[in-house]
Amino acid sequence: MPVSPLAPAQFPDMPPVEGVKLATAAAGIRYPGRTDVLLALFKPGTTVAGVLTRSKCPSAPVDWCRAHLKKGSAAALVVNSGNANAFTGKNGREASRITAQLAAAAVGCRTSQVFLASTGVIGEPLDASKFGTVINQLVAGTAPAQWREAATAIMTTDTFPKGAAAIVRLGSTPVTVCGIAKGAGMIAPDMATMLSFVFTDAPVANRVLQNLLKQGVTDTFNAVTVDGDTSTSDTLLAFATGAAAARGAATITKLSDPRLPALRKAFEAVLGNLAEQVARDGEGARKLIEIIVEGAVSKSSARKIALSIANSPLVKTAIAGEDANWGRVVMAVGKAGEPADRDRLSIWFGGIRVAHKGEREPGYDENAVSAVMKKPEILLKVALGLGRGRDRVLTCDLTKEYVAINGDYRS
Amino acid sequence: MPVSPLAPAQFPDMPPVEGVKLATAAAGIRYPGRTDVLLALFKPGTTVAGVLTRSKCPSAPVDWCRAHLKKGSAAALVVNSGNANAFTGKNGREASRITAQLAAAAVGCRTSQVFLASTGVIGEPLDASKFGTVINQLVAGTAPAQWREAATAIMTTDTFPKGAAAIVRLGSTPVTVCGIAKGAGMIAPDMATMLSFVFTDAPVANRVLQNLLKQGVTDTFNAVTVDGDTSTSDTLLAFATGAAAARGAATITKLSDPRLPALRKAFEAVLGNLAEQVARDGEGARKLIEIIVEGAVSKSSARKIALSIANSPLVKTAIAGEDANWGRVVMAVGKAGEPADRDRLSIWFGGIRVAHKGEREPGYDENAVSAVMKKPEILLKVALGLGRGRDRVLTCDLTKEYVAINGDYRS
Repeated sequence: MPVSPLAPAQFPDMPPVEGVKLATAAAGIRYPGRTDVLLALFKPGTTVAGVLTRSKCPSAPVDWCRAHLKKGSAAALVVNSGNANAFTGKNGREASRITAQLAAAAVGCRTSQVFLASTGVIGEPLDASKFGTVINQLVAGTAPAQWREAATAIMTTDTFPKGAAAIVRLGSTPVTVCGIAKGAGMIAPDMATMLSFVFTDAPVANRVLQNLLKQGVTDTFNAVTVDGDTSTSDTLLAFATGAAAARGAATITKLSDPRLPALRKAFEAVLGNLAEQVARDGEGARKLIEIIVEGAVSKSSARKIALSIANSPLVKTAIAGEDANWGRVVMAVGKAGEPADRDRLSIWFGGIRVAHKGEREPGYDENAVSAVMKKPEILLKVALGLGRGRDRVLTCDLTKEYVAINGDYRS
Repeated sequence: MPVSPLAPAQFPDMPPVEGVKLATAAAGIRYPGRTDVLLALFKPGTTVAGVLTRSKCPSAPVDWCRAHLKKGSAAALVVNSGNANAFTGKNGREASRITAQLAAAAVGCRTSQVFLASTGVIGEPLDASKFGTVINQLVAGTAPAQWREAATAIMTTDTFPKGAAAIVRLGSTPVTVCGIAKGAGMIAPDMATMLSFVFTDAPVANRVLQNLLKQGVTDTFNAVTVDGDTSTSDTLLAFATGAAAARGAATITKLSDPRLPALRKAFEAVLGNLAEQVARDGEGARKLIEIIVEGAVSKSSARKIALSIANSPLVKTAIAGEDANWGRVVMAVGKAGEPADRDRLSIWFGGIRVAHKGEREPGYDENAVSAVMKKPEILLKVALGLGRGRDRVLTCDLTKEYVAINGDYRS
């Protein structure tokens, strides 16, 4: 699979996060000749927060994380690619438990301090003994800042590893926020799905970390769609080692802490960067599409309309065909079920207004618009003229390659 | 465009409907060398009912029909292909009015008795004067039973004309129900969309006709999806000429009329047949997919889950790839947001159970399932094990041809 034409030029330069060590291994879970297990170890006292799929059919590791996030203490994270351990019944739950036990024994922590994520085919039994063959080697081999290796080990149909970092001052103490992600869609196939892990040495109480994450996803991961298919395994975990406390940063325990906004901004920058990379690696994608809806009756109404456009196969195929087919945008606005007035609607492609107040722009110039459509990044703006609600969603085009990837994947 | 491999062997043998006469013409609205206008004339006293798109950006003819359905009296129907007259502003409303006036003058009726539908590109001004050049020729040329010609004149990306008929006794009087439809999706592109017209000589009061139509679409047109994109122009109109009254059938004025169930059955047979033909002509379709969901908490919950499966690009591409990828069905059930219990879920492809109670079927035989997936018609059944809610939805697969048709259409 060639690397997405929308991929960043290179993997970012990411600093270590004090209190986090990483290792990867090839356990042969599905594909030979590639790493497929990631182990992250955390210093004692690490807090954890998570946002998990709302699917009614979640994977076994999602159930595991949901159960143990309540305790909020993390010592290790084990992630595998090649098998999602989803829809695997009692055996799947058992595989998660065994994996956590193997890691806890090797690391010397409680099983409830081990967090898990799996990505790959749904419905195939996961052989947890494969972790047993690599766990000691993993523990022995951990090192700081193995970000690129970590992001690579968790890839499935991804065509490039995804990482992002930010450094921010907590009062006068610099702290680091590093994140990795995988996913060729907010949803991806069998391949279940979008996983992302964020690490910081900032000392942050669980409740505050959970708030950072929950607010952080709203305009980042939750504002990205590739195909509208929500996975059984979507998992975003944040780990705060608190190592920066030794450098003078007191723990953030309250949402009113004056140092929090800077850290929140860093989190949102990392999550936003990773989310954009997921859209850039959308299966078969050749165009990154930024959809801005303004003038809606509320932000949530703007979000629904933006997602209706972003998930419309007809809009996505038109953009794949470099066709500024604004009639399909009208259709997608109309079907969203949100307040809209056809006769106040205006539409722009790449800054060129193509429709205004319910009609084609009088001076519509097909050549100018065609030039915009040939670019790899397309801005699509819709103004509803009803209120002040505004939102932004990222997606990618729908190409024959998407169909090929998903028609050929399992067979 | 080659005819869909899922097309019926031939256009059905459809009898005339007493009180209905049809004519078609080539007005050159968009494409030369083909018919693109349909005129239907109705005997005095014809009642009319309609179900129209719920899009917030409806086409001008949809607005026109909505306004005039209240009066409930029809003398003529004018339909054009090649231009949807949608998102055309004041000029579009004017084009509808002029078309109705031209027809009313030629026919000798009130403009409010002329019903309109347009299908084709969105956002292009419709030149109503083109109707003026053909209207007298159309009126002079009307004849009974020109069903195939009528269904052909309204096609856009359709690969075959769609018609269906039923004959039923109203008491002892035989009456006829004939319908035609166009649409390569409940939604289709630019091509706005699904149009269907049903004609009967049964004498039926408006209120009853509206009820027949509204109930009739629930499990027929509203249970079909090609790509989940609802059009600006979806229009279903029913015309009842009442001609059978002269043969002894009293007008049906009440929903309690004992003759109504037989007529309702005929309506549903015609609507169901046409809806299935629309799925069979889904853009790029090579597989007709029937999705049955049972054991849901209610029929409406079963419908939502069935539509979540039917609209999932991952399920549709898997079936295009002849892959019994039931993991994606699990995903689509999980994302529907309806009550579901992963550990009670069972899934069948073509009668073969592939997953049972939250796990892969123990004796899963890939070869047997692969043979089923090669067929042109795929039955996909999901049992939730929660209640007695059951529903059925038809769709088609998502192929590279869909992307090609919709990426290349306008440019």
